Amino acid sequence: MDEKKIDHIIEEIRIALQSGNLKEAINALVRLHPADRAEAFSDLDNKDQAALLPGMDIPVAADLLEELEDEQAADVAISLPTELLADVLDEMEPDEAADVLGDIPPARAAEALAEMEDAKEVIPLLSYPDETAGGLMTTSYVAIQPSFSAAQAIGILRQIGTAVETPYYLYVVDDVNYLIGIVGMRKLIIAQPEDLVQSFMDTDVIAANAIEDQEMVARLMSRYDLTVMPVIDDNGYLQGVITHDDLVDVIEEEATEDIYRLANISDSDLSIHSPVGISVRRRLPWLFLNSITALFAAWVISNFENLFQQVALLAVFQSVVAGIGGNAATQSLAMIVRAYALGEIPGRVTLKPLYRQVAIGIIQGLAVGLVVGFGVYLWKGNVYLGLIISLALAANILIAAVVGTLIPLGLRALNQDPALASSVLVTAITDSVGFAIFLGLATLFLSRLT
Amino acid sequence: MDEKKIDHIIEEIRIALQSGNLKEAINALVRLHPADRAEAFSDLDNKDQAALLPGMDIPVAADLLEELEDEQAADVAISLPTELLADVLDEMEPDEAADVLGDIPPARAAEALAEMEDAKEVIPLLSYPDETAGGLMTTSYVAIQPSFSAAQAIGILRQIGTAVETPYYLYVVDDVNYLIGIVGMRKLIIAQPEDLVQSFMDTDVIAANAIEDQEMVARLMSRYDLTVMPVIDDNGYLQGVITHDDLVDVIEEEATEDIYRLANISDSDLSIHSPVGISVRRRLPWLFLNSITALFAAWVISNFENLFQQVALLAVFQSVVAGIGGNAATQSLAMIVRAYALGEIPGRVTLKPLYRQVAIGIIQGLAVGLVVGFGVYLWKGNVYLGLIISLALAANILIAAVVGTLIPLGLRALNQDPALASSVLVTAITDSVGFAIFLGLATLFLSRLT
Repeated sequence: MDEKKIDHIIEEIRIALQSGNLKEAINALVRLHPADRAEAFSDLDNKDQAALLPGMDIPVAADLLEELEDEQAADVAISLPTELLADVLDEMEPDEAADVLGDIPPARAAEALAEMEDAKEVIPLLSYPDETAGGLMTTSYVAIQPSFSAAQAIGILRQIGTAVETPYYLYVVDDVNYLIGIVGMRKLIIAQPEDLVQSFMDTDVIAANAIEDQEMVARLMSRYDLTVMPVIDDNGYLQGVITHDDLVDVIEEEATEDIYRLANISDSDLSIHSPVGISVRRRLPWLFLNSITALFAAWVISNFENLFQQVALLAVFQSVVAGIGGNAATQSLAMIVRAYALGEIPGRVTLKPLYRQVAIGIIQGLAVGLVVGFGVYLWKGNVYLGLIISLALAANILIAAVVGTLIPLGLRALNQDPALASSVLVTAITDSVGFAIFLGLATLFLSRLT
Repeated sequence: MDEKKIDHIIEEIRIALQSGNLKEAINALVRLHPADRAEAFSDLDNKDQAALLPGMDIPVAADLLEELEDEQAADVAISLPTELLADVLDEMEPDEAADVLGDIPPARAAEALAEMEDAKEVIPLLSYPDETAGGLMTTSYVAIQPSFSAAQAIGILRQIGTAVETPYYLYVVDDVNYLIGIVGMRKLIIAQPEDLVQSFMDTDVIAANAIEDQEMVARLMSRYDLTVMPVIDDNGYLQGVITHDDLVDVIEEEATEDIYRLANISDSDLSIHSPVGISVRRRLPWLFLNSITALFAAWVISNFENLFQQVALLAVFQSVVAGIGGNAATQSLAMIVRAYALGEIPGRVTLKPLYRQVAIGIIQGLAVGLVVGFGVYLWKGNVYLGLIISLALAANILIAAVVGTLIPLGLRALNQDPALASSVLVTAITDSVGFAIFLGLATLFLSRLT
């Protein structure tokens, strides 16, 4: 992640391409670590990218496609002639090749598959949705039989060399590929050469079903500190293996999804590098939804419209109550959403977190209500105004705690993502309720305010 | 993560303890996977926890302490007699033992260290702050010399057996412990027994300096798909090793930190299970800060106070403009914060992301301004009111995009966390500016509104 070196190489590539020296440009790129090549490549404009690719060695192009963001990898893949694309896909890890094939137009994918030599490794991976264990797994693993000796197993590893992505564990299956155990390389090395695999394999295997959601898979791998996780079908037959780099990707993707949803952005693939058009399409609908809820809150206020002619001060302070309430609700909301993401709340429906959030809401409501109410009294000299603000704040912050907790819990009980739309809903409720309480109290005490 | 099984075991433990059968209670706990024991143990009340611990075998207690949350592990450690605590710490991974020692009162830690047999493995780890590479690493790794043969290296592994946490890589160092290479077990198995380590070791090693921030370490490990990362001091001497389970923990912790900071919670250790008192202490200061900014926004409105007596409708719609602006700003803010967390923005100071966010802001501002302004015109029948809202929304959403982008970029340029306090700042500005633009425009067009 040496930014200066990467910048320097990008410059070198541009200069080499300008003078038509394709080979030198590729050599410059290859001097970088494969993970850094993707960054340098992404920084080039489309013309330069298109010039570079066909000149690369197949393994280099395959590495590059594996490291690029999904969207960009698909763009690059589409730009390649089918035959070259098939060769590159053959060279890629099966799970990465399947991801690319899933992201390009189906007709192109079918053409490429027809040209591929290792299509049979990739095709089973295409049938699972991206966000499931099956969509994450690779078929590049080493399976052995329980009756093998340690020496035989080591012999198989020697044969395979470095061609397989997940070399630190061997999977033990029976004749029909039913998963019965796992052997770590450490045990293989420690074992006597003539020891049978079944005598030292680990049979207490934690495996994921292929249709399991990736978030659940990540939670299991993280909870049990697994570097790899075998994937089985409903019958227990071994389908593939999920590796730790996929785990890291899933955890980061799920965190992005939660942060974005709390900020009212609906697509975790969006980044600051996404085109403006796509960004607007993913963000604008939420602003419109927020507009509707804001107009609803305005309608609540409009019921008290003639108050403002009598006490214009109320227009000054109404937003204080609503705004602080929204802030308090967001605190509870973020804690519940994060607790679900980290598996700190059990899967079943529960109201347990509510009690503590309510207690926090009562304390925070009283504290903020007292201080802000007293501040407003000092500022405007009207004790009733201060009192109304105190009461409204205390009530709204308590309601905020309840709403900020119940909405994500409720979404989860409905089998929805607790982060989805909860921010808009929470703000809508704390705003409307905040305005109603404050202006309602003002109506009651109207004679004391004028 | 079989919740029903865990619940069932908890019940069993409670019943066994009630009838005074300590051994049976411990046996029930041990039937769970070590990672699940922590969950079951946490669910017991303090009295039951205190009863169980001293009766456990040392290795079981060590496993349990490793799996508990930091705070709870410290509580448990404090409750143990010093001699027992020392034995348990000796049995734990050195990095986990160091974490516990760092979380209990220094006097207790010193006593325990004095009683420990393996204190010398743990002491070097105590000198690094928790959130650095040195704070994450373990000293439990296998180092070999470049002149060893493959057979010798395998012999060493056989001797060590399963006692070491990071067995899939061996670290190659010279006489003074200077790190010169890495050997994966796969290469060791493939090598001929008489091959020298220096002939097949990997010398292109990515290592972290012990004082490097954990977030940077996680980014490097994730970028280069590393399962382990050696940690060196300024001179390149090997200090320890960071394992992939620590990587996962760091990524989750950093994501929690960002989500919490965006939601105005200042402590990523806080969870829904934290005591109410601690929760309030970590959340309330932010509500007070938000109160100050809300009162500032109220002061902005108070400058237009006499407007409301003439056109009470303005009080109805002022929050619409401010609220939608805040929402748009949060979208940009979340994208920039996430881009930094994922390493998508280079470390150096840059304004590059601003242009795209501004373009998005202009489009969103025009779209929302037109639609909402037209909606208000239809609702209230006043074309000037609709026009003012359109203009104010377009301007505030554009400003929101600028503010939501510049605040995190600016915080980063000042070497601060881009997520820290940015939510409060962004809301404060979009609120105040939103009110000022809307009410300012209303003043200009006052004759058309009455």
